[in-house]
Amino acid sequence: MRATVMYGAHDVRIEDVPDAGLREPTDAVVRITRSCICGSDLWPYGSMPPSDTGRRMGHEFIGVVEDVGSEVRRVAKGDLVVAPFLWADNTCEFCVEGLQSSCRHGGGWGSPNVDGGQGEAVRVPQADGTLVKLPVAADSALMPSLLTLSDVFCTGHHCASTAGVGPRTTVTVIGDGAVGLCAVLAARRLGAERILLMGRHQVRTDLGREFGATDVIAERGDEGVERVRDLTGGDGTHAVLECVGTTASLEMAFGVARDGGFVSRVGVPQEDDVPFGRKYFMRNVTLTGGVAPARAYIEELMPDVLDGVIEPGRVFDSTIGIEDIPDGYRSMADREALKVLIQP
Amino acid sequence: MRATVMYGAHDVRIEDVPDAGLREPTDAVVRITRSCICGSDLWPYGSMPPSDTGRRMGHEFIGVVEDVGSEVRRVAKGDLVVAPFLWADNTCEFCVEGLQSSCRHGGGWGSPNVDGGQGEAVRVPQADGTLVKLPVAADSALMPSLLTLSDVFCTGHHCASTAGVGPRTTVTVIGDGAVGLCAVLAARRLGAERILLMGRHQVRTDLGREFGATDVIAERGDEGVERVRDLTGGDGTHAVLECVGTTASLEMAFGVARDGGFVSRVGVPQEDDVPFGRKYFMRNVTLTGGVAPARAYIEELMPDVLDGVIEPGRVFDSTIGIEDIPDGYRSMADREALKVLIQP
Repeated sequence: MRATVMYGAHDVRIEDVPDAGLREPTDAVVRITRSCICGSDLWPYGSMPPSDTGRRMGHEFIGVVEDVGSEVRRVAKGDLVVAPFLWADNTCEFCVEGLQSSCRHGGGWGSPNVDGGQGEAVRVPQADGTLVKLPVAADSALMPSLLTLSDVFCTGHHCASTAGVGPRTTVTVIGDGAVGLCAVLAARRLGAERILLMGRHQVRTDLGREFGATDVIAERGDEGVERVRDLTGGDGTHAVLECVGTTASLEMAFGVARDGGFVSRVGVPQEDDVPFGRKYFMRNVTLTGGVAPARAYIEELMPDVLDGVIEPGRVFDSTIGIEDIPDGYRSMADREALKVLIQP
Repeated sequence: MRATVMYGAHDVRIEDVPDAGLREPTDAVVRITRSCICGSDLWPYGSMPPSDTGRRMGHEFIGVVEDVGSEVRRVAKGDLVVAPFLWADNTCEFCVEGLQSSCRHGGGWGSPNVDGGQGEAVRVPQADGTLVKLPVAADSALMPSLLTLSDVFCTGHHCASTAGVGPRTTVTVIGDGAVGLCAVLAARRLGAERILLMGRHQVRTDLGREFGATDVIAERGDEGVERVRDLTGGDGTHAVLECVGTTASLEMAFGVARDGGFVSRVGVPQEDDVPFGRKYFMRNVTLTGGVAPARAYIEELMPDVLDGVIEPGRVFDSTIGIEDIPDGYRSMADREALKVLIQP
């Protein structure tokens, strides 16, 4: 089958790889009907050291179950399913607590015998825990929005949710990438009173406004912090959703947080040290968030997607086939595309 | 009147200063009957650059109201009162939210016209908001425990509370100083199932056991982390109460936090950068806490002190007069004394 392999920075290839197949009685094999490229894929795309063996890519997908192991009970051949970006048994203590990202028997896509989502098919470990059935046809117009339940919209929701967003909350969202825009939408869905979006790409911030942003701040750094403070009577906002992952972005996040507020980070941190010392201690700012346990949120968020209440799939602005994936990476890295959908 | 002035590291003097007096109609003057030395006073005691003017010290006290301004309604001459370690109006938005440490009209003790707690008397700004009446006699045996409501027990409670401690929570407390021991007591009071105390001074950890610690870990660093993990089936604890403030201590805190857990810090951070990168992001660890809004907790915690359910005052193991305060600092810095009570 065809699949995406990254061999180093800016070196993404589509290759023939062994067909996905069952290995464990708890496995399923899923033929992929939709997948996509993630903002987090751009980190290795920008910096991965050269590798001879390469790394299978892709961790967001919808597909049709083609085969199941003898112990699989909850999905069957022919089911249309969505998978979260980490697989999990959904029964261990962590999963029961809603932290499927720390599942005792879970893991990530793209390891040698598991396959990645940017390909024709995937072996799905812990299929009963991992896969969620979709009550629509495989060619439904809802596909882009349902695909965001794999990662990007659940990540935005995790960000808003761990930051305690609710009615009467004021929110700053840092980053106008797909995660940032989904964080805006998630904050709006949770009832946030006011949502300030920090970003400077107008096509994206325009979508952010449609998703619920009440204010757009193009300034960055100290200037950006000052602007948010000006707009909030000097106080900053209760919740800050940090959707980038750089130290500069975290610094802005702390700067715009209201005393007693929550900064939630879902951008993968690019540095080990976080500039979060005494100044923020004196202001009782909390730093929360982390990798999203997407599996915990899929059932909760799906009804609003099915009902058309929210359309997170609008973050996709480009659709390509498998063979075009290398160019999809390039276009996202060059910020030509916001988020690329793959239709094998 | 006599009061404590710090002129630099290891240079604490008792001096004649102008008598405390009313300046604003919202002020009170309180004659101090009990105060103490705080672990946080030891940071400047160890490192303050020499100063010609010096810095008035002390921020924890109980006393008798001697005079009130014309707008003061809630306390009157003769009342026995306790003050939190920051003064506040207790009516602004932050105060109403329980974040009196960020009061819009609040501040700290020891500024030139406000006086410090380690002296004979104090001008109390925002007296109605700041002071809380004590329903006991000034010579009650409960004085040491009631005095801890000024800071140290409220700080321990803030730590446990922001970390989400409750029944079924497992807790690690880092630090066997007075704050750490109060954090143990607060965690026990909130119903924590298991409390692991990291400390190596046996007199202190023995008191920690009496306060509710179920395990004591003398090891530090990686060894300490490993020991906590061994004791918790490899997982670490839901809540980690960081009561020291150094980077080494924070590193241990993150190391012993369970995935999805909360590290709460109440030790004043001594560094600006926090080693809280991708590893903890992947585990969804939250860093919370901060300077305690003690005023928010005094009424909540006082009944258990009055009823003798908890005795946080046991952290005091030495009582001195005002003139002995310099030696009190030395004895705490040398770890001869755990916490020094001052009886003017």
